[in-house]
Amino acid sequence: MDELKKLMQEVTAFSEERDWDQFHSPVNLAKSIVIEAAELLECYQWSDQADPQAVEEELADVLNYCLQMAAKLELDPAEIVRKKMIKNALKYPVEKSRGRSDKYDQL
Amino acid sequence: MDELKKLMQEVTAFSEERDWDQFHSPVNLAKSIVIEAAELLECYQWSDQADPQAVEEELADVLNYCLQMAAKLELDPAEIVRKKMIKNALKYPVEKSRGRSDKYDQL
Amino acid sequence: MDELKKLMQEVTAFSEERDWDQFHSPVNLAKSIVIEAAELLECYQWSDQADPQAVEEELADVLNYCLQMAAKLELDPAEIVRKKMIKNALKYPVEKSRGRSDKYDQL
Amino acid sequence: MDELKKLMQEVTAFSEERDWDQFHSPVNLAKSIVIEAAELLECYQWSDQADPQAVEEELADVLNYCLQMAAKLELDPAEIVRKKMIKNALKYPVEKSRGRSDKYDQL
Repeated sequence: MDELKKLMQEVTAFSEERDWDQFHSPVNLAKSIVIEAAELLECYQWSDQADPQAVEEELADVLNYCLQMAAKLELDPAEIVRKKMIKNALKYPVEKSRGRSDKYDQL
Repeated sequence: MDELKKLMQEVTAFSEERDWDQFHSPVNLAKSIVIEAAELLECYQWSDQADPQAVEEELADVLNYCLQMAAKLELDPAEIVRKKMIKNALKYPVEKSRGRSDKYDQL
Repeated sequence: MDELKKLMQEVTAFSEERDWDQFHSPVNLAKSIVIEAAELLECYQWSDQADPQAVEEELADVLNYCLQMAAKLELDPAEIVRKKMIKNALKYPVEKSRGRSDKYDQL
Repeated sequence: MDELKKLMQEVTAFSEERDWDQFHSPVNLAKSIVIEAAELLECYQWSDQADPQAVEEELADVLNYCLQMAAKLELDPAEIVRKKMIKNALKYPVEKSRGRSDKYDQL
């Protein structure tokens, strides 16, 4: 089994051991992802320099809930990221978007 | 190379091709993760039922930026998730936290 | 002076006394608003029932940073809310949007 | 009636006219606040310079939902902001916190 599927199984097992599946509805996982993402942003609230240890832990929390949500919805994380990249490649063709941070509808 | 590292290289290559690395400071990636996480939550804004296609795409966006941030900070996504799980296992021992959604300081 | 302007002065004075104005750039206030908004959401992370005291305090924190941001950008909070409501009234005419949570582009 | 209560009545009336009260549970309003706060942050995603018109509108959206949430929970916005400021003044005494962005537990 590949590394990503294995990791997804590990985070799911952690929750199952604690009987937390009952709390992990898709909407609650979506809330949890944004809550952890805001804690990651908090590392950079007042400065562009952040405590590396805190950043690492908060990024891990976001990833953990993302993997749990993918598992819950029976999505393959690598597959959905690749599918979205193909879509993004059409919205952001290299020649038009190079060196520009504009949204696709302003390119 | 494992699947996760390969995926991380792909999302990084996508940005490099577009010369977007200049915009992808850690703080900007942290902002981007929370922005995409809120778009994922928006799928569930008024209802616990969401459009599966929209959810898949927004979750992919969150994951994509998380992998870019890991790459930028030279972190191994699987390793940081596992390290944090070990820490969480100490905060949430199975016997104490089973079936409870309480925070560790309230267990 | 009206109540809202008075409150805006009070939150601004609190920061000025602490010489925090140097940290309160518009982008940092925008980060702070989303960080506090996520703490408010955290009250409802696993349940629709929340601790009223915690909700009250987190909502106060969001409002506080919103007023500081308005002050920093020299915006009148009541005026911008009313201007946006006029715009929203055009996007969501009563007859079309009554009883529906759809976005304006799907009405 | 003071300006703030009047504004709160106006945003509430806007929703009532559209029969949106059914969607505006406290948890959904909390989600809405974080969603709008992330749209405000999006104005600053890649740069500290933002489009003033977009900032004004997104800040208005955050404020609007905050006032709706206060109304729904029968909270007085000015009162809760002031109560929280008193609490914050104890956590961040002027002499200790002046010119520092540290959290109260690190002062």
